[in-house]
Amino acid sequence: MFVKISLSTTIKASISLSSLRNIQSYSVVMSKFDLPDRLKGNDKSVWVEYIQLALKYKPLNLGQGHPDFYAPENVTKALVDAATSDNPLLNQYTRGFGHPRLVNVIAKLYSKLLDRTLDPNNEVIVTCGAYEALYDVLQGHTNPGDEWIIIEPFFDCYVPMIRTAGGIPRYIALKPKRTNELLSSADWIFDKQELESLFNEKTKGIIINTPHNPIGKVFTLNELEFIANLAKKWNTLVVSDEVYEWLVYEPYKHIRIATLPGMYERTITIGSAGKTFSVTGWKIGWAYGPANLLYNLQVVHQNCTYTCNTPIQEAIAVGFEQELERFGQPDCYFVSLAKELQPKRDYMAKFLSDIGMIPTIPEGGYFMIATWTALKDKVRLEEETDENKDYRFTKWMTKNVGIQGIPPSAFYVSEHKHLAEDYVRYCFIKKDENLKKAADILMKWKSQQ
Amino acid sequence: MFVKISLSTTIKASISLSSLRNIQSYSVVMSKFDLPDRLKGNDKSVWVEYIQLALKYKPLNLGQGHPDFYAPENVTKALVDAATSDNPLLNQYTRGFGHPRLVNVIAKLYSKLLDRTLDPNNEVIVTCGAYEALYDVLQGHTNPGDEWIIIEPFFDCYVPMIRTAGGIPRYIALKPKRTNELLSSADWIFDKQELESLFNEKTKGIIINTPHNPIGKVFTLNELEFIANLAKKWNTLVVSDEVYEWLVYEPYKHIRIATLPGMYERTITIGSAGKTFSVTGWKIGWAYGPANLLYNLQVVHQNCTYTCNTPIQEAIAVGFEQELERFGQPDCYFVSLAKELQPKRDYMAKFLSDIGMIPTIPEGGYFMIATWTALKDKVRLEEETDENKDYRFTKWMTKNVGIQGIPPSAFYVSEHKHLAEDYVRYCFIKKDENLKKAADILMKWKSQQ
Repeated sequence: MFVKISLSTTIKASISLSSLRNIQSYSVVMSKFDLPDRLKGNDKSVWVEYIQLALKYKPLNLGQGHPDFYAPENVTKALVDAATSDNPLLNQYTRGFGHPRLVNVIAKLYSKLLDRTLDPNNEVIVTCGAYEALYDVLQGHTNPGDEWIIIEPFFDCYVPMIRTAGGIPRYIALKPKRTNELLSSADWIFDKQELESLFNEKTKGIIINTPHNPIGKVFTLNELEFIANLAKKWNTLVVSDEVYEWLVYEPYKHIRIATLPGMYERTITIGSAGKTFSVTGWKIGWAYGPANLLYNLQVVHQNCTYTCNTPIQEAIAVGFEQELERFGQPDCYFVSLAKELQPKRDYMAKFLSDIGMIPTIPEGGYFMIATWTALKDKVRLEEETDENKDYRFTKWMTKNVGIQGIPPSAFYVSEHKHLAEDYVRYCFIKKDENLKKAADILMKWKSQQ
Repeated sequence: MFVKISLSTTIKASISLSSLRNIQSYSVVMSKFDLPDRLKGNDKSVWVEYIQLALKYKPLNLGQGHPDFYAPENVTKALVDAATSDNPLLNQYTRGFGHPRLVNVIAKLYSKLLDRTLDPNNEVIVTCGAYEALYDVLQGHTNPGDEWIIIEPFFDCYVPMIRTAGGIPRYIALKPKRTNELLSSADWIFDKQELESLFNEKTKGIIINTPHNPIGKVFTLNELEFIANLAKKWNTLVVSDEVYEWLVYEPYKHIRIATLPGMYERTITIGSAGKTFSVTGWKIGWAYGPANLLYNLQVVHQNCTYTCNTPIQEAIAVGFEQELERFGQPDCYFVSLAKELQPKRDYMAKFLSDIGMIPTIPEGGYFMIATWTALKDKVRLEEETDENKDYRFTKWMTKNVGIQGIPPSAFYVSEHKHLAEDYVRYCFIKKDENLKKAADILMKWKSQQ
């Protein structure tokens, strides 16, 4: 998908058109338009690479995190209503920091969940996906030299968002307490002393992701308190990426770090309509937090995308209003989706175990990581050229077995990628028939000589 | 809308909670999270301010540029079809650099218009509005110290997009050839010598906007050739903001600078689905140009929003496919919209003239600027505190007469704002009944003592 035209290609292309003199001047043209220094090294994306791979080989795709089933009907109906409304303005520009109806209901929801009154106009901002919310936070709160603490594995976009603003990511890995047996995501923990040692006067903030992608870990109160105390001690921000906030399996509970004492003032929390309503293609996210911290996000947002899609925002607002009406009831999508996903999770854990992988059972989210090393004799890793074994494993499986997963080393910094090489990430927010197909494909492959 | 919490407010807020010692440490908290230096000075937005004003005073809004009538039915129907499609993936993530169906039809359309074959995957990128396309270009092609030439008046977002990347805007104003009589937007011209003097070895590019907002100017072949020759001589980019490409009135013709000899190679052209299909709230734009130049946009896009709304992209793709089928016919929306708008333009020009303003008749776009100075005795400018008279005029009119326009000095650099103070910008892509209301309100106001 990336065709970076190299200088030599460009020169060759011009040979048929130009004299040598022209070739030389044309090569100057091109180098002048190379990527600016601050963007260099941020051009690789596992998503771009693996989506391209999927388009080419058409595997059963358990890679990218999105449902392959229908979005909830009330939400798609709300979009139909907005697009065909009697009010023609629902297809035109709306307020830049968030459509009034949407920020109002987001503020209402989180006011309830946080037990404090959020001002919809100044403590909520709507963005083009949670992705843009993360961008607005990290660009809006990073001065050159600022350090951000990132817990590995991490959503890969955090790093370029920090680096292009001149910030410095510092890493700490979640590591499993034990190996070679069935793991829970709760077994993946950070070393408290190691985390403490990363905080210093240059620390601008720490990014946490709970429930966690790809591990599925739901951070405990004890862990969150430990992080909160360090953030208060060192006067840092906490960016809490909670896009999977409703995808938590019994008996675990999602805890919002912004609810801990003294933490709202320094926390920016990120949410996602795509994850909340199973419409990842709608690309609406939000951030909430104190007005003075959100101000920086507003400045980035208004100079980057300025405003988000109006009918989609209207539809999501309607969706939230409906869920608020049935809040606490079993048919509320906030809880019914997790109930629907839990058997899918358990089914995937079983079929991965059956073929010899060792899965980590997630407490939340819709991803599962598993070690694949017991199957290494069945995979011809030498046919792939990537540096990391998990890349080679997932590419070989896509091309030869017809199942695509994502290599988790994409979510580690270079020097820590080795920690993830034995793993693959699969997504289980898929129709039962497709999970069954995945099980069949893997079982058939396993049984082949 | 902007509530920048000042340090003193914050400290006051904490007094009830904390000892003096805590207050002091809390004040440190806040300054640490001030806006980073590179974002400072980019926080003011005429849009944020005037939309807030409109929400408060509810004037007849001729300010922001969007239709107040229904979007074309085929396009909203296409969105309904996408959102409720049998294919559940139309509500999920699509390809990051553009939904395949959309980039294919965009490439097909511009291949026809440019008479060259565009590669949909590498020479087209889809973005969250033309606004993000501009951001991706200017961030993706600006190194610290790079100079960009901007023609005034200009879309105000160009400047922060350049500045936050360390670039330096250089300005040249369009000026009317004559005054005190009915003007055409063709009378607004740039001084060729002055433009030539701005180009130098640091020039990364020039941004043009044709048809032009707010003047309505459609750049002539002669003007575009002059710009193209300078761009080639100094080896610079041309960013051609052509979001109003289909809104050109008889007998004028839109010329794409990318079609001039040797120009495709150095031109990035920006388009907008919102403007093309009268759905500004859909926030889908695109850029096209040579793959090596678009590569830089891809890197910014994938680290900022990553991907755009899927059902909206599908709907726009369907819209384009349908217009391509009736291309060249009178019912093609690409030409029928301008035909529908021309009488609105002429009506607005008449009623503004009737009350004593001097409008500039636009050759393209859906804005009209007009001088309001003949009415200055009827406006109590001293009741408003803004530095520039056009801000005071437009605010006073919003609050006291109930008509909102936009102050064009927002589209000039500080030292040139005086050039625009006698003008107001109105938008005429409005229902006839609302234009009639505007005429009635102004006429009634004019006739009052």
